[in-house]
Amino acid sequence: MSLSIDRLAVVGVGLIGGSLARALRAAGVVGEIVGCGRGRDNLEQAIELGVIDRYTHDIADAVRGADVVFLAVPLGAMRRAFDAMRDTVSVDALITDGGSAKGSVVADCREAAPALLSRFVPGHPIAGTENNGVAASFAELYQNRRVILTPLAENPADTVDRVRTIWETCGARVTEMSVEHHDEVLAATSHLPHMLAFGLVDMLARMKENDEIFRYAAGGFRDFTRIASSNPVMWRDICIANRDALSPMLAAFAGEMAELSRLIADGDGDELLRIFERAKASRDRYVDGLK
Amino acid sequence: MSLSIDRLAVVGVGLIGGSLARALRAAGVVGEIVGCGRGRDNLEQAIELGVIDRYTHDIADAVRGADVVFLAVPLGAMRRAFDAMRDTVSVDALITDGGSAKGSVVADCREAAPALLSRFVPGHPIAGTENNGVAASFAELYQNRRVILTPLAENPADTVDRVRTIWETCGARVTEMSVEHHDEVLAATSHLPHMLAFGLVDMLARMKENDEIFRYAAGGFRDFTRIASSNPVMWRDICIANRDALSPMLAAFAGEMAELSRLIADGDGDELLRIFERAKASRDRYVDGLK
Repeated sequence: MSLSIDRLAVVGVGLIGGSLARALRAAGVVGEIVGCGRGRDNLEQAIELGVIDRYTHDIADAVRGADVVFLAVPLGAMRRAFDAMRDTVSVDALITDGGSAKGSVVADCREAAPALLSRFVPGHPIAGTENNGVAASFAELYQNRRVILTPLAENPADTVDRVRTIWETCGARVTEMSVEHHDEVLAATSHLPHMLAFGLVDMLARMKENDEIFRYAAGGFRDFTRIASSNPVMWRDICIANRDALSPMLAAFAGEMAELSRLIADGDGDELLRIFERAKASRDRYVDGLK
Repeated sequence: MSLSIDRLAVVGVGLIGGSLARALRAAGVVGEIVGCGRGRDNLEQAIELGVIDRYTHDIADAVRGADVVFLAVPLGAMRRAFDAMRDTVSVDALITDGGSAKGSVVADCREAAPALLSRFVPGHPIAGTENNGVAASFAELYQNRRVILTPLAENPADTVDRVRTIWETCGARVTEMSVEHHDEVLAATSHLPHMLAFGLVDMLARMKENDEIFRYAAGGFRDFTRIASSNPVMWRDICIANRDALSPMLAAFAGEMAELSRLIADGDGDELLRIFERAKASRDRYVDGLK
């Protein structure tokens, strides 16, 4: 399928939205790019960097006349975005997003703008860096990264195909799964680890003599807690958006930790060794090969 | 203090023991280095690499005539080492170790060889890599790394000073604290994070469709779980050696995770944001500056 976009509207011109705009521009498949956001400085910078051609702070304006709309706002702002665009987005516009949880975004669309459901193909690029804002965006962010699409029953097949082509044009490897399955998989591999890292650092920070504790932390601790430096507002939104999958998984993990504590108190070396060996084998087998 | 060692005995010629031997040899402060261990191939390789001059499999032989003895065996093998060296180590030999927990090693010495307590200065170099064996050792491992000494009431001050000089000669920054405090600090910054990483990977590995779950794990997950690829036997030993500090801390962490699960289920965004912001602030303040 050859891709040609006359006007792309990017709502939320940060790392994710800015990188999509850059990649499509670099591929030469897009005419005009309209940016939308709240921060004027960031949007001015986006123009200077050539990421967008013009901008507005008004979502209803931004999407008018666009044939593709990309929503890259925080999860907590998705419902407002659907609400704002409902009456001005053109009837044949394709809509997709980059949110890290999918069930909540689909619910937001279903409640705020049900007429858009057939043209909204939810998506999640598994990509990012520790930096935010359009200045951090780059055209190669999605090269060889996975993008998960979670098509809806309302989506015609060719609509899903068009969104797939957009991501493939950015160099991504696109797969599809159900909304529910996506949210389970991401809870396990991303949301749960972030909770562990945030929770660990917070617990240590509340200990007495915490500065001394951190002083003796070595390199492994720095790697392990890197994700606790992530954006707190974004993660609050993700937790609440994906609470149905995440909360029970975190409760199960709490049970695992309590059990491990008991095994250590009991000095049950055989069972501890079994757990550590199983974990090391999985980690070596699955994770070292990850891109 | 100028350092001169006629004969150094290194019991356990792996990454830790081999690197100490290399660093002291590079500094030109050691005459003969005797290696001791179980694996013949590793010890032959240690000779080929110039790390040691000769070896024996018998600890009683290895320490005979040595003026410094460095114990770098797994924590689970410390008691046997003290027992084996008790009758052959010279009366003025200095003894130190590199174990990751200190209370258990002191207890091992106190029970197996109480007469050695005055000359045994427990130590812990906060250094390491993911690799094991003498082939992984290198003279610069301890450069600018922290070494914690946990002197005993039985240690004369000049005995502690001599051990300090040995580590400073290797380029390390030496600090002192009590055995109990060391074991608390290390439980918090090293042992607890390892339990989280092992426990997380093990839990995900036991989920159905675990290969698909790991397939969608991104870079953050790789960093976060790196320490779950550590040596399972070593970590079983550490858990049991430091059970008094580690087990209650792990139980407290289980409680934190259960509470976080409840906050997410309740959608308590304000409290979640407070936790994540506190964690990010601590992480950014303390950990990014770590060497």
